[in-house]
Amino acid sequence: MEKPWAGRFGATTDKRVEEFTASVAFDRQLAAYDIAGSIAHARTLARAGVLTADETDRLERALTEIGAEIEAGTFTFRDDLEDVHMNIEAALSQRLGDLGGKLHTGRSRNDQVSVDTRLFVKERAGRAMDELKRLRLVILDRAGQHIGAVMPGYTHLQPAQPVLLSHWLLAYWEMFHRDAARFRAAGNAADVSPLGSGALAGVPYPLDRDYTAGLLGLSRPTANSMDAVSDRDFVLDFLFAAAVTMMHLSRLSEELVIFSTAEFGYVILPDGYATGSSIMPQKKNPDTAELVRGKSGRVYGDLISLLVTMKGLPMTYNRDLQEDKEPLFDAARTVIDCLGVTAGMLAEITFDTDRMSRALAKGFVTATDCADYLVGRGMNFREAHETVGRIVAQLEKEGKGFESLSPERLKEFSALFDRDVTQILTVDSSVQARSVFGGTAPSRVAEMIERASAVEKEDMP
Amino acid sequence: MEKPWAGRFGATTDKRVEEFTASVAFDRQLAAYDIAGSIAHARTLARAGVLTADETDRLERALTEIGAEIEAGTFTFRDDLEDVHMNIEAALSQRLGDLGGKLHTGRSRNDQVSVDTRLFVKERAGRAMDELKRLRLVILDRAGQHIGAVMPGYTHLQPAQPVLLSHWLLAYWEMFHRDAARFRAAGNAADVSPLGSGALAGVPYPLDRDYTAGLLGLSRPTANSMDAVSDRDFVLDFLFAAAVTMMHLSRLSEELVIFSTAEFGYVILPDGYATGSSIMPQKKNPDTAELVRGKSGRVYGDLISLLVTMKGLPMTYNRDLQEDKEPLFDAARTVIDCLGVTAGMLAEITFDTDRMSRALAKGFVTATDCADYLVGRGMNFREAHETVGRIVAQLEKEGKGFESLSPERLKEFSALFDRDVTQILTVDSSVQARSVFGGTAPSRVAEMIERASAVEKEDMP
Amino acid sequence: MEKPWAGRFGATTDKRVEEFTASVAFDRQLAAYDIAGSIAHARTLARAGVLTADETDRLERALTEIGAEIEAGTFTFRDDLEDVHMNIEAALSQRLGDLGGKLHTGRSRNDQVSVDTRLFVKERAGRAMDELKRLRLVILDRAGQHIGAVMPGYTHLQPAQPVLLSHWLLAYWEMFHRDAARFRAAGNAADVSPLGSGALAGVPYPLDRDYTAGLLGLSRPTANSMDAVSDRDFVLDFLFAAAVTMMHLSRLSEELVIFSTAEFGYVILPDGYATGSSIMPQKKNPDTAELVRGKSGRVYGDLISLLVTMKGLPMTYNRDLQEDKEPLFDAARTVIDCLGVTAGMLAEITFDTDRMSRALAKGFVTATDCADYLVGRGMNFREAHETVGRIVAQLEKEGKGFESLSPERLKEFSALFDRDVTQILTVDSSVQARSVFGGTAPSRVAEMIERASAVEKEDMP
Amino acid sequence: MEKPWAGRFGATTDKRVEEFTASVAFDRQLAAYDIAGSIAHARTLARAGVLTADETDRLERALTEIGAEIEAGTFTFRDDLEDVHMNIEAALSQRLGDLGGKLHTGRSRNDQVSVDTRLFVKERAGRAMDELKRLRLVILDRAGQHIGAVMPGYTHLQPAQPVLLSHWLLAYWEMFHRDAARFRAAGNAADVSPLGSGALAGVPYPLDRDYTAGLLGLSRPTANSMDAVSDRDFVLDFLFAAAVTMMHLSRLSEELVIFSTAEFGYVILPDGYATGSSIMPQKKNPDTAELVRGKSGRVYGDLISLLVTMKGLPMTYNRDLQEDKEPLFDAARTVIDCLGVTAGMLAEITFDTDRMSRALAKGFVTATDCADYLVGRGMNFREAHETVGRIVAQLEKEGKGFESLSPERLKEFSALFDRDVTQILTVDSSVQARSVFGGTAPSRVAEMIERASAVEKEDMP
Repeated sequence: MEKPWAGRFGATTDKRVEEFTASVAFDRQLAAYDIAGSIAHARTLARAGVLTADETDRLERALTEIGAEIEAGTFTFRDDLEDVHMNIEAALSQRLGDLGGKLHTGRSRNDQVSVDTRLFVKERAGRAMDELKRLRLVILDRAGQHIGAVMPGYTHLQPAQPVLLSHWLLAYWEMFHRDAARFRAAGNAADVSPLGSGALAGVPYPLDRDYTAGLLGLSRPTANSMDAVSDRDFVLDFLFAAAVTMMHLSRLSEELVIFSTAEFGYVILPDGYATGSSIMPQKKNPDTAELVRGKSGRVYGDLISLLVTMKGLPMTYNRDLQEDKEPLFDAARTVIDCLGVTAGMLAEITFDTDRMSRALAKGFVTATDCADYLVGRGMNFREAHETVGRIVAQLEKEGKGFESLSPERLKEFSALFDRDVTQILTVDSSVQARSVFGGTAPSRVAEMIERASAVEKEDMP
Repeated sequence: MEKPWAGRFGATTDKRVEEFTASVAFDRQLAAYDIAGSIAHARTLARAGVLTADETDRLERALTEIGAEIEAGTFTFRDDLEDVHMNIEAALSQRLGDLGGKLHTGRSRNDQVSVDTRLFVKERAGRAMDELKRLRLVILDRAGQHIGAVMPGYTHLQPAQPVLLSHWLLAYWEMFHRDAARFRAAGNAADVSPLGSGALAGVPYPLDRDYTAGLLGLSRPTANSMDAVSDRDFVLDFLFAAAVTMMHLSRLSEELVIFSTAEFGYVILPDGYATGSSIMPQKKNPDTAELVRGKSGRVYGDLISLLVTMKGLPMTYNRDLQEDKEPLFDAARTVIDCLGVTAGMLAEITFDTDRMSRALAKGFVTATDCADYLVGRGMNFREAHETVGRIVAQLEKEGKGFESLSPERLKEFSALFDRDVTQILTVDSSVQARSVFGGTAPSRVAEMIERASAVEKEDMP
Repeated sequence: MEKPWAGRFGATTDKRVEEFTASVAFDRQLAAYDIAGSIAHARTLARAGVLTADETDRLERALTEIGAEIEAGTFTFRDDLEDVHMNIEAALSQRLGDLGGKLHTGRSRNDQVSVDTRLFVKERAGRAMDELKRLRLVILDRAGQHIGAVMPGYTHLQPAQPVLLSHWLLAYWEMFHRDAARFRAAGNAADVSPLGSGALAGVPYPLDRDYTAGLLGLSRPTANSMDAVSDRDFVLDFLFAAAVTMMHLSRLSEELVIFSTAEFGYVILPDGYATGSSIMPQKKNPDTAELVRGKSGRVYGDLISLLVTMKGLPMTYNRDLQEDKEPLFDAARTVIDCLGVTAGMLAEITFDTDRMSRALAKGFVTATDCADYLVGRGMNFREAHETVGRIVAQLEKEGKGFESLSPERLKEFSALFDRDVTQILTVDSSVQARSVFGGTAPSRVAEMIERASAVEKEDMP
Repeated sequence: MEKPWAGRFGATTDKRVEEFTASVAFDRQLAAYDIAGSIAHARTLARAGVLTADETDRLERALTEIGAEIEAGTFTFRDDLEDVHMNIEAALSQRLGDLGGKLHTGRSRNDQVSVDTRLFVKERAGRAMDELKRLRLVILDRAGQHIGAVMPGYTHLQPAQPVLLSHWLLAYWEMFHRDAARFRAAGNAADVSPLGSGALAGVPYPLDRDYTAGLLGLSRPTANSMDAVSDRDFVLDFLFAAAVTMMHLSRLSEELVIFSTAEFGYVILPDGYATGSSIMPQKKNPDTAELVRGKSGRVYGDLISLLVTMKGLPMTYNRDLQEDKEPLFDAARTVIDCLGVTAGMLAEITFDTDRMSRALAKGFVTATDCADYLVGRGMNFREAHETVGRIVAQLEKEGKGFESLSPERLKEFSALFDRDVTQILTVDSSVQARSVFGGTAPSRVAEMIERASAVEKEDMP
């Protein structure tokens, strides 16, 4: 097809170049937003007196029709028409003749592609927030079910102190709650209408840009036309929100992989979220968690990809900017899918709290409490730390745990130990003691579940 | 020195490992925050009855003294004391004996390093915002000085349409204004006190964590102790804010490098911000702009560095997290410095508006206006576009610009051209026509300078 | 479909998980390699006495048939069959019954996917080398055509010294020649057969792994089965080769974008590789070069993506490794396409050597020669540098170039200037003087074209 | 100090800019290479007749003296002298007067900084190879010590099949052997002398560049002056080699962290490479392994940093290139240190082979052998897989392992089971069976240790 800009050109576009520069294979994902943007632009042209009411009506009907065909999968995208915008324009002109072309008045590809992408980001940010909320509700649900269970808390993947299973779950609630704020920021950054910016300098028609923004559900028009057509900050904001979310998911996935090993055995993954081996009949592999963990790589890659593309670009629009789409689409699909499968998996996971209990018995996890006990009886912390260190070293040599210690045996290490120490060395006592705000004491954790639930309710529509 | 945790160990740390794991070479940058955090913790212990008023007083005086010595450069950091925290602790114990050790009550290295880093991020985010503001004020100042000047606006680095030099400047105002929001978000993310989280599970002392937060000027305590000691989101938020800011700076730098070439010549860099060549006597090189542009790489690297380190880390604290410091310090220094030198450079740049005018005469930048003129006279846009395309092709062949065209000559291309077209083809007419909100018309740009100035005033303390 | 590993599972895979973990949408690109690997494995099983000659024959025929159908596009891939391997296996079993399943003897998905990916990398590395060679031959061709032409050589994008246009072109020959070595290394890294490694421990059948390797055109079998199934170094090698190549292409693209501006005007892009604007009739945009430049971002992203995925993975196979495919496929297609369009574009570019000449006249590019002249007459370099600096500053003030200077005028700056200096200040004299090996003197550059041509011939098959 | 290029400048460099552009704080690491390069250049100038023998001698003596002072730490670097080169030049001029300046003849900062960096990369690549060799020798040593021990081999971190501990170790030998090839490639890429390229166009003196290269131990001179001064491929090659090595180290570290957990317990880290907790007396944390793992982030960041800086840079030298140093220095130090501490740690690690044996008893790791047994008796693989799957599911329910199964019990699952099956289900039988090349059979692994040892010997100087 002859290009709409062929006037000054002596030769047609090289075939390979046409394929190389075409984006319709992926930017068709923007079709619905392109239709919406075009309808809003048509109405704005009408308001400015550029189109008659009848013209506007016909344009809107034809656009709606095309949109429905795309939705239904009956619209044929042509690769030689380069991108989604030209495909829709061509269909419009075919149906409406010259009137189709009038829609180009006061609009350029530069502000058009910007508005489409902004609408996409705003919508996907919303969906990511929905998925985050769903995941957080699962977390709260599971935390509520297991309020009594105690597990070893780890630092350096070594047993450190006992914590409530619910406390562990709530730590992830915090992360996924912060993630929502990043998507909200990305959605807000996208929530501005660039239509009316033209190619770069604004348009020579008295368009009511607030009106356009309102029609599209966007909060306001962009304030500088040059910035408007070359700004992709809102895409970067989305990619960063996705990257940090994937990082959190990779941490949870790593823990699920480790906790579902034969050696830890704290969780049993639902069969529907694990796979077997075609060669080893005994295997039950945490594939879902592994894939989620591995996909952090691609989303980090998406983020760095666009940061690199934007680096050093002079204003305003440059064709490099076409490279914003695929990382965005990929990251959006990835993060939304990963949140979804993780929520599904977490909802059905079995926590083996017996196994956790047995692990607690072996892990010296109340050693800090033991030292604190001595401090409470007047020893300075450093000496207490050393004393307990010696007890642990001795027990390790004997292959025993704290539970094997009688008060008498303890007295050999320090005369400050008394009968009541055995009480102190229980994991229940240990978690009870940490009732400070944010601590792992059952009462505190219960309170935190309520607080978080209240937060979730507030956010509800 | 013997380690404070040597109790259960049979051998001392390998010398090479000691050097390998030490962080005091860089984390001493946190010293002031560590002192502040320790004082706040001491007062909180006092409030909880763990320390007496006198003990608290002595601790506070000693800490303040140590802080002053560090500030003055008279404090000797010892590498064998691993990190800044142990250096300060050791100094404290040396001065106060056992009392020094008491400060460790209800606090672990994990929540301590977290609070130090949070205070650092909050402070540096504020400084970055200050530098951004300074740069934006320079932009507004320069935009106000040149309100009349017109330059070629570019897309694809090809002359596209005339724009006001001030409009070009304001596009950067928009970018740097958005950047401030990202630093604000990072500062807010950091604005939470983790003290009281202990190693991972909370502390077994009735610490008033709101009180601690208040003493440190932080808005509230963290809500989950496990999350608190392993969360580095606030550092990532800062690194991302820095990366996007560097991206914007790299774009401005690229334009300054291009605009200061012999071939463009739109800007003359201040001598104080350029360098010469030790071998080529005629050179005046835009080194400052180049370095700013190049430094985008290191800040992107800092961001990816921490994202990678965090990937797949099980909870809670792992030593990997020590790797958060150097990228943070590097990015903070880089972005603050780059903003500073860019503001300084932009304040003293000479804009060669004559050169811009001459370039406008050659660039066919009013071709769109010419097409719009034909559309206004009833031609459809597509035909108008083609007609003007042919005019441009012809003029290019003749090596001439639009200004060479008489109305008669234009009539050869289309009968719709009339006398008044020569008026339309001027750059002044072109920019005047784009008076839509966000457009480049002088009246609109003047209004935008005022709006932006008002925004700046509102932010003032 | 029931999974081949369903034996120990109580529930079927969640639908969403099935979609989430499926890879057939992209790994079908490996089909031809999977067929080849299966045929080689069948023959090896025959040699080991596991399959009869007849069985092997039937397997080979059926595999060849399936391969042909895939090639022809008549094979239907089923998403519920997860990946390309299971799709082919299922088709095989459908055609051959139990015999199809026998092919699984002594092979696991882990070594199978590894061999497929290795064959893919080896082939694509070869194609990238072919495209690099094609591009280098274009460069040599263009360098040969323009051996006389001189252009301003730049440092810091400021005119520095005159260089031959051919010398500039040959600099890129060097880069693209180095790039080939990186792809060769990636191809060599892939050139090893993992078949026989089984799931991770080797197989309990006496397979002749050298024989398998030979059948696949691979140089040797892998030496450690655990490493073999979890090694993706060869993919990283490919991604790195692609990233550096894209970096070089981005530099060339940047220069083409700048050199094709109205302001520089050194190159005129072929119409077939540029595009116009749908709104601005005068535009001829360097879209192809911009897209190539922009696509550096995605390939950097692909590299970082896999580096991140691999980080911290315990041995041996983990499902995370499935994430190696898409970055690999994307980078391979991108780098091959970008090399192709760049070669095509460079072949047809017009170099405006007149424009280069005019630029040389204005750029003070022989200032170094002027200083060298004074040094040759006994002045120390530093003083000479300063003297010429003063001449340049004076001429800039007058808006003149070196060509305006008479020997008399020069004598005002230094008595050492003589009549012959005007000869020295010509660009021809300047380039002639740099006849050192690797320098820009025409004779040297001509020699270098010959050397490079000889290198290209040597590589020929 | 007045700049050597001050001639055409009207104002001095801004103080903040001076600090911003200075590199002496880090590039002083290049001092020894700068001295070596200068001496080689002086001798080449002598050979070309530009310097007298006496002058050359005095220069060389002064340079050697300065080098010795720098080495001894008695040389004072001045920040206002910008970089290491100017610091050495200034010292030279101070000692030798005008003769010092003569060294600048036929050399520019551009080829000088390039040669320094190349020498640095070549040397560090060699050191990395040395450290890799040291680590590989430790691996071979440990593999030789434990040739009999069997451990569970994992896929998806689930027990898969038994493997030799030595086989596991040798997998890492393969990785670190491949890494050496990448550093060798980086060293070779650096092994070219750019001296004589001048600022960008070559020098107008008849320098014997092969002679210079030979003096510096470099293989040959660069072939194109423009490429020579803007090429940083060799730095990227080094950074990539470092990144992949760090990836491998992060995998090993992850396994050491997991294997040293209380739950796995396969390795006991040497006390000298672990640290305790200042608060939890029982802790023994794998800090060294964690830090090595975490440092993968910074080296990935270093790689991406330079890739970004190089993206889109027009030729030839641009100040952006100064940003190559810090990532290079950082990555070199990091990878060399990490290799060193890992080798030290691995040499002293205790492998708890009893614990491995006990784990094998529980893991169903011979399930594949069980299925193979049935296949050997005529069952098709798929049915065999299912049968064994059912056995595993049943045993899991009963909380038992394979060792609990009598032949009679097995017959209930399939009549094909015979008395000899109990022999087949032992881990020893399982590993023996995998005697294919690259497999885990003890004889094969012993052979592989010998092969690897022979390879190491061949490389020896």
